[in-house]
Amino acid sequence: MTEADGIASHGLAYVPIYAEHVRCGKVDGQAVPTVTEPRPGVVVVDGGTGFAHSAIDAGFQRLQPLAKSQGIAVLSIHNSYNCGVLGVHTQRLAQAGLLGIGFTNAPASIAPSGGAKPVVGTNPFSIAAPDGQGDVALLIDQSASTIAKSEVMKHAREGQPVPEGWVLDAEGRPTTDPEAGLKGSMVPSGGYKGVGIALTVELMAAALTGATLGSVASPFSGTAGGPPRTGQCFIAIDPLATSAGAFQERLSHLVASFRDQPGARLPGDSRRNCRTKASTEGVAVNAALLARVRELL
Amino acid sequence: MTEADGIASHGLAYVPIYAEHVRCGKVDGQAVPTVTEPRPGVVVVDGGTGFAHSAIDAGFQRLQPLAKSQGIAVLSIHNSYNCGVLGVHTQRLAQAGLLGIGFTNAPASIAPSGGAKPVVGTNPFSIAAPDGQGDVALLIDQSASTIAKSEVMKHAREGQPVPEGWVLDAEGRPTTDPEAGLKGSMVPSGGYKGVGIALTVELMAAALTGATLGSVASPFSGTAGGPPRTGQCFIAIDPLATSAGAFQERLSHLVASFRDQPGARLPGDSRRNCRTKASTEGVAVNAALLARVRELL
Repeated sequence: MTEADGIASHGLAYVPIYAEHVRCGKVDGQAVPTVTEPRPGVVVVDGGTGFAHSAIDAGFQRLQPLAKSQGIAVLSIHNSYNCGVLGVHTQRLAQAGLLGIGFTNAPASIAPSGGAKPVVGTNPFSIAAPDGQGDVALLIDQSASTIAKSEVMKHAREGQPVPEGWVLDAEGRPTTDPEAGLKGSMVPSGGYKGVGIALTVELMAAALTGATLGSVASPFSGTAGGPPRTGQCFIAIDPLATSAGAFQERLSHLVASFRDQPGARLPGDSRRNCRTKASTEGVAVNAALLARVRELL
Repeated sequence: MTEADGIASHGLAYVPIYAEHVRCGKVDGQAVPTVTEPRPGVVVVDGGTGFAHSAIDAGFQRLQPLAKSQGIAVLSIHNSYNCGVLGVHTQRLAQAGLLGIGFTNAPASIAPSGGAKPVVGTNPFSIAAPDGQGDVALLIDQSASTIAKSEVMKHAREGQPVPEGWVLDAEGRPTTDPEAGLKGSMVPSGGYKGVGIALTVELMAAALTGATLGSVASPFSGTAGGPPRTGQCFIAIDPLATSAGAFQERLSHLVASFRDQPGARLPGDSRRNCRTKASTEGVAVNAALLARVRELL
């Protein structure tokens, strides 16, 4: 559960949704991913409209040894689904001693600069760097919008308004109503540069993989539209090969340049703190949500 | 010249700087890049403190055929220098039928969120997608700051104030004085997410390559400090291998979803328009700059 990773919006709250999506046919709970290797550095997985996690698991079994032997390898996944917290997956690559980069696309919710109709998802990317001792030294995982769409959905479920600058309504006007925002579009982070990030991720996770574009994919929420058939792309690199062994020293220095400044925040550190806290103090879960999850058992 | 690519701040204006840097020893004009291939998918270039363009040229000669045969390959460059407009290089990969991704680091000018001291450069990334017919279909090239540092330097040279939101002074306060901004820091695009982009690029272009981190690199401007020894990283992927041939159809659809909306802007289109205009109408060059360049001949 990603509650333990400090991302409450992506944790247990998704269990009832995943169960609903198996029942309605958005996800084939019995799917077995198909793995092929069309080139020495390429792993292709057809997720068969099953859970993304199974497709990623199957692909990583080949991606990791290939990245070590080739120096770099790519995993291309189509016929997939929402993969939850992207950084959970890139973190695994870092724990295997690799630099892991991940891209995942989602149904469209960001409009082009100067336009109004959403054409790309909030499309996160993630990069995870190994610490040379079997764990992750640095993890970046950020969406192309000002805020993750799941946070807006969480506010909508709880009937809370969202801060200004998170969402636009269907006419492209700013709003604090999460329901209006979910019918409209997400504000891209940094304006047109956020659109550039979302488009980069769409290129990697959908065009490059042959998956379904966010502009035509069925929604990740609700039961309508059948399988979304979206995609993921992971690139794994052996930093020993590219840096002649200098990688860990450079990385330590880079991390220190952030941590040595009083008050400065290194991306991923607040998530790391949540993880540490969860591992010692346990995880607080909304009682109503827990009851819903227990009903599924 | 990148004037012809529509990026006036990175074009002829750099010729006097490049010449000055050869004279003062920041760049070795006689350097011959050294190319090695430590793994089947990895090309490593030691730029020998020469021009980045020569190092990239040498590396691309091996990167392109490797990406075709392996499906993916990476070019790691250290002991390098300012590579000018990053998209000029990724565009070449797209013109060779490959998806090209590029990262380049620069002397530190962005501070961490919550901190004041710059630790990473404005660090652009670029991605270029092939059109399947020998040209580029889509090109994204954006820095991690609200605006490229070269634009601030251009304003400083011309004695013009910069808009608010571009730079902070050395105490981290907003300013419209380009000189104060150059002594302070650049505003990251989208706040902490811009820092995340700059850090991602620093990981790829400096840590992964074993190049010099932006926090300790000598400046790209002025004559002090010797060679900056910064780095570049390029990843080239054959989209035919990863998408089972679906790439071009998906890409056409993605590009159309932007262009079909009245008023919507597709990243790279304004640059493409400048290129087209330059090829028919020629390029307007500042007379004083032209005189300076002619003096060098």
